[in-house]
Amino acid sequence: MRVYDIIAKKRDGQKLSLEEIKFIINGYVKDLIPDYQVAALLMAIYFQGLDKEETAHLTKVMTNSGDTIDLSEIEGLKVDKHSTGGVGDTTTIILAPLVAAGGIPVAKMSGRGLGHTGGTIDKLESIPGFITTLEKKDFIKQVNQINVAVIGQSGNLVPADKKIYALRDVTATVNSIPLIASSIMSKKIAAGADRILLDVKMGNGAFVEDLTQAKELAKTMVDIGNSFGKKTVAIISNMNQPLGEAIGNSLEIIEAIETLKGKGPQDLTQLCLELAGQMFFLGGKAKDYVQGLKLAEKLLYSGEALQKLKELISWQEGNVDVLENYSLLPLGQYTGILKSREAGYISNINSKLLGSIAMELGGGREKKDDPIDYGVGLLVKKKIGDYLEVGDPIVEVIANHENDFERVKNKLLAAFEFSPNIIPKPPLIYEKIY
Amino acid sequence: MRVYDIIAKKRDGQKLSLEEIKFIINGYVKDLIPDYQVAALLMAIYFQGLDKEETAHLTKVMTNSGDTIDLSEIEGLKVDKHSTGGVGDTTTIILAPLVAAGGIPVAKMSGRGLGHTGGTIDKLESIPGFITTLEKKDFIKQVNQINVAVIGQSGNLVPADKKIYALRDVTATVNSIPLIASSIMSKKIAAGADRILLDVKMGNGAFVEDLTQAKELAKTMVDIGNSFGKKTVAIISNMNQPLGEAIGNSLEIIEAIETLKGKGPQDLTQLCLELAGQMFFLGGKAKDYVQGLKLAEKLLYSGEALQKLKELISWQEGNVDVLENYSLLPLGQYTGILKSREAGYISNINSKLLGSIAMELGGGREKKDDPIDYGVGLLVKKKIGDYLEVGDPIVEVIANHENDFERVKNKLLAAFEFSPNIIPKPPLIYEKIY
Repeated sequence: MRVYDIIAKKRDGQKLSLEEIKFIINGYVKDLIPDYQVAALLMAIYFQGLDKEETAHLTKVMTNSGDTIDLSEIEGLKVDKHSTGGVGDTTTIILAPLVAAGGIPVAKMSGRGLGHTGGTIDKLESIPGFITTLEKKDFIKQVNQINVAVIGQSGNLVPADKKIYALRDVTATVNSIPLIASSIMSKKIAAGADRILLDVKMGNGAFVEDLTQAKELAKTMVDIGNSFGKKTVAIISNMNQPLGEAIGNSLEIIEAIETLKGKGPQDLTQLCLELAGQMFFLGGKAKDYVQGLKLAEKLLYSGEALQKLKELISWQEGNVDVLENYSLLPLGQYTGILKSREAGYISNINSKLLGSIAMELGGGREKKDDPIDYGVGLLVKKKIGDYLEVGDPIVEVIANHENDFERVKNKLLAAFEFSPNIIPKPPLIYEKIY
Repeated sequence: MRVYDIIAKKRDGQKLSLEEIKFIINGYVKDLIPDYQVAALLMAIYFQGLDKEETAHLTKVMTNSGDTIDLSEIEGLKVDKHSTGGVGDTTTIILAPLVAAGGIPVAKMSGRGLGHTGGTIDKLESIPGFITTLEKKDFIKQVNQINVAVIGQSGNLVPADKKIYALRDVTATVNSIPLIASSIMSKKIAAGADRILLDVKMGNGAFVEDLTQAKELAKTMVDIGNSFGKKTVAIISNMNQPLGEAIGNSLEIIEAIETLKGKGPQDLTQLCLELAGQMFFLGGKAKDYVQGLKLAEKLLYSGEALQKLKELISWQEGNVDVLENYSLLPLGQYTGILKSREAGYISNINSKLLGSIAMELGGGREKKDDPIDYGVGLLVKKKIGDYLEVGDPIVEVIANHENDFERVKNKLLAAFEFSPNIIPKPPLIYEKIY
């Protein structure tokens, strides 16, 4: 088998076999195949695509390129949720205790933030004392005892994806549906879930910006999951504006707690209930999605889910007093309020730009090992379709440097577009794909 | 300027500017841009192409990436001929003295053979004593004195092409019309020609295998030449079977001499007269191609072209006695005749395979620094459309190892396909493009 022939085959639109995909991926992980040949192949895949079978093969080979997690010591159907990434996406911190309270074991491995998107692990670490690394046996024991544990991703999960993703990132080959789908699904499958719920974000703050592409991505991932015998459901949700109000680590923890108290932003609450309903259905705790949604509402508004978050924080050595006293969380000492300079309806919000500004304030990292400031961020007070008069507050900036607000305010304003005409509120969820 | 953005631009079918092409090519030559990004860009170009202007820009930037040859000290219009490469292509050794005899200065820099195709410099070096490296001033002096000199390519001509070609060769991106065209034309232009004649070979022994592609390649190169103010003409000639009979270094020298004596194979003679006619027209020695052809015929059949070859060999220190005594050339001591095992018309000849067998006998190189055996090769006695009885000779093998004939004969036979039906003789020249 020659790498050259495999590149030429895909370049000419032919189908690659499992053996050919194995040869490439395993050879690349072992440094036997050079970057430049894989780069050429990735660009050929960008143009020619991969069919359903090739995508399943690629996912399988990537899944097996490193460690896989065996969760069989945990009783019950493990349902994992994955979001394709967005700005101010606090859902995991709300969902994990919510579905755990409903009897679904949540053995969650989450990532850190990079670029304009945040990461669940960073957010949890803003809670004083909270630890995000556990020995495997302690992780499993905790899930068996309280039904929920959230830790950072293990070192050698899907090394093929790490290496290929880094190459895609510098060769303009990230935006390929089969490559995105196999990258996400290989990690979910390696992490040991029995059922998978996918939250495919669509919009200017996400990977995919239009509905056709989002549906194709969702369908491709659902097909992969099912080909592995892991029942998979996807919802396509709006990422044309940040979810909830908060962008920033401590700020999102506060928002998550408020939501579990039943006082969270309407969009975030609705999406979490929706996702939890699907997970209860997938995990066999409800006979259909409607029953699942009812269960989710009951657990949220009864305070049971909040109680579960308290258990989670306590077991992972965090200070549970934060639930009642937000000042125990690190919070920036300087605040500034961005006010509207014109009157009109908000017609567009550049979520990616907002994410980048939060990063610039110190709340995220540009490079993998950058330090992070948990206390800074943004509170986005207005959404698409809202009407503003001149002088109305749009965004509150929480910073740790006196001049930060002055420095970012014009850029921040540029993230909002206004219209004199009424703008309809966009839907929160576009589609569900089974 | 960021490499990533340039890759993404071409990937999305947008046009690259001169500055962007310069940034990529110069950065790559200086090792500032890694192989993998250029590989991704080349594959994007494979799919999206380059328009006329981008191709001219690329050619210009490549031409200027290293030394360029100044031939202004040579009087008269320098007309260079380039063949896109084939099997058993002896034309340069016939054409150089032929057009020089007609008054066109021939300051020719030629290449060595690689893979299944031979190189003019290797062929000339089979003449005892013949030297193919000359100081620049001696090269120019010789052209001014006898109108012809043929030497090997200088070290630093178009280094960008060397580096990019090596990368294309391992990333399945060779077969792209704008990349082939700019690679060839940058070298012709750097070598200092005023006028360019292109012999685009089409068929199973060449780069391009169908007429549509060959025409596109020819047109692209003619456009490039004209955009540099260097009048360019292309002919598309048949490479579905070897040109002439001989494949191998000494064998092709003998064939060239025979042709200049008016006793060469009909196809080779006709193609050389045709090319010479075009060069006389391009170089202003004939008012049109028909006049040029007449001049070429006169020079060939009068022996003047042969006399010019004698001068060339003499000036470059070769033994001129080879013209009358072929046994002075290195020649393999073992011969074998491949005979037909079936009766019928030859319907197809795999020229590339014949070239590879000649290489395998020792007549060519697989890698750049492999040694070469000047004395071995093949004499292909039959062409497409010829009728053979069982036992008729097809190919004579000249080798330097006793068992070579037995070793290659079955592979050799596999290069020929037979048909019970009459097969028309294919045309030698398909098209001329101005």
